[in-house]
Amino acid sequence: MSRLSDIGEKEAVRRIQELVAERGASGNIGPGDDAAGVDLGVIYLVATTDIMAQSTHILPGMSHWQVGWSLAAINYSDVAAMGAKPIGLLVSMGLPRDFDSGDLEEVFRGILDCCEFVGGELLGGDTKETKEVTLAGSALGTVGKREILLRRGACPGDFLCVTGSVGLAAAGYQSLTKKLGFKEAEKAILEPRPRVKEGMLLSSSGVVTSCMDVSDGLASSVYSLSEMSKVSFSLDFDEMPVEEEVLQVADAAGLDPTELALHYGGDYQLLFTVKPKGLGKLNNLLGDAYSVIGKASALGENVLVRGGKIARLENRGYEHFR
Amino acid sequence: MSRLSDIGEKEAVRRIQELVAERGASGNIGPGDDAAGVDLGVIYLVATTDIMAQSTHILPGMSHWQVGWSLAAINYSDVAAMGAKPIGLLVSMGLPRDFDSGDLEEVFRGILDCCEFVGGELLGGDTKETKEVTLAGSALGTVGKREILLRRGACPGDFLCVTGSVGLAAAGYQSLTKKLGFKEAEKAILEPRPRVKEGMLLSSSGVVTSCMDVSDGLASSVYSLSEMSKVSFSLDFDEMPVEEEVLQVADAAGLDPTELALHYGGDYQLLFTVKPKGLGKLNNLLGDAYSVIGKASALGENVLVRGGKIARLENRGYEHFR
Repeated sequence: MSRLSDIGEKEAVRRIQELVAERGASGNIGPGDDAAGVDLGVIYLVATTDIMAQSTHILPGMSHWQVGWSLAAINYSDVAAMGAKPIGLLVSMGLPRDFDSGDLEEVFRGILDCCEFVGGELLGGDTKETKEVTLAGSALGTVGKREILLRRGACPGDFLCVTGSVGLAAAGYQSLTKKLGFKEAEKAILEPRPRVKEGMLLSSSGVVTSCMDVSDGLASSVYSLSEMSKVSFSLDFDEMPVEEEVLQVADAAGLDPTELALHYGGDYQLLFTVKPKGLGKLNNLLGDAYSVIGKASALGENVLVRGGKIARLENRGYEHFR
Repeated sequence: MSRLSDIGEKEAVRRIQELVAERGASGNIGPGDDAAGVDLGVIYLVATTDIMAQSTHILPGMSHWQVGWSLAAINYSDVAAMGAKPIGLLVSMGLPRDFDSGDLEEVFRGILDCCEFVGGELLGGDTKETKEVTLAGSALGTVGKREILLRRGACPGDFLCVTGSVGLAAAGYQSLTKKLGFKEAEKAILEPRPRVKEGMLLSSSGVVTSCMDVSDGLASSVYSLSEMSKVSFSLDFDEMPVEEEVLQVADAAGLDPTELALHYGGDYQLLFTVKPKGLGKLNNLLGDAYSVIGKASALGENVLVRGGKIARLENRGYEHFR
């Protein structure tokens, strides 16, 4: 007998994937990507699920609206990572008997606002009684067969890019738990914005070769793209889009900003690779909504370049049950 | 402030549906049916979600395999109720840190076996840490636009029918909790069988006018079809398919078998209506896998006929949070 806390989330998922593989392969996409892709002829139906619970995912001080928004956002982020257009969301909730019905309506207002933000709908739901508030979402979307974005596909020579900035959600978490009062950072962790519009632009561009969302941390995501695409990455820390508040929070909390930018999750940005000649097209589509932060090369070691020095990129991120 | 235990599940769902309605109507189907129907051009994508938790839904003595099977089964049952062909299932799990990883594999074997049974696939999943074992599933399927089965559509004169038998799961629940040892009944509640094959035959028949699954009890389901279709039903108790073990359990537990057959849930059979001239075609397709148990008439009162006597059908079933 081994407990989940002994083996950790990754090993547990690996064992389940083995069981699934024993049943034989299908024509569908997944596992290993942000979402499954179901072959419906001319399109892929993209489908994904994410769960949050009071004790582990709902931050102190988070409003009920923010809980609902976040549930929808983390699910739609996986749809965005596949370059898909959202259809909508299914929501299953486990709630204690004494949960306030007005608070429940606020949770649903947050869900509905995020659905509107991405152009999706609340498709259905289920509520049952549980001891702890537990919310599970499943997001659906569609994407053209040739447009779908996967974690595999990056080639040596491709540029590594990220939307928005990194580390702000991690800084927000520090600010919240240590009561430092950095409002922009706190908003980043309390109200994550799924990059659905950006994902759809990336998939339609024709120059993006791989993509995933940065939910478990940038370094860990770089390792995922590397493993799935069989390439290595050189990550240039000096080119990384890090907001001023991240540096301020790191200073106030006595933390290394590299740590916040690389090894924490919660940013829900898109990490992607683009063909060497594709940057011009990408600039036209995304403007300054993304940054080039590195480059792919033949499979070797993933490295971090900082101030001219090269070091191995540490493969650390957030893992559940450990 | 009002707690969920004060207002009950139905009122909570009604309030959420009001919030959804405020956002404006879409071209999709739902709420009010067993699953949502998303218009994808030539087909509907059918999507539904259901959640179960240790404290409220996982029965004493249920094996881990049965927990997984049941999660998949209750989700696929809603796909069956729409007459759809399953695509597959997404699974989100909240698990305590000390949950055994071998037990988790057994849960997934149950899920995978039920997926195989209905011809679906496990599409994806998420596992996170929670205090209580909580499992949420979302099932997807497709159905031709003209074939989809809804709760509305029954007309006066239509026959009311049900697949399989009723009350066996309720009898199984009594047998389990009172340790009466009725194995067939216990299997019915521990390993519910989604009527996916039957649902697909019903939708392709062209003679079925409305359909839903009997998850919250037969009487309450009759009221749902009645409300959605704007017809009334006369339910003939003497024609109801009730297995011998239901009578035996009722006898052993000192319960009225009518109660088990009408006012408990868990059977996951399909309740449906068929055009007056459609019974012959239905017999060819389903054989003895269904029974005619009543008839629709113009909107009035739903009644129960038993031994020649007519009484109002009581609208009682299982409701959460109360």
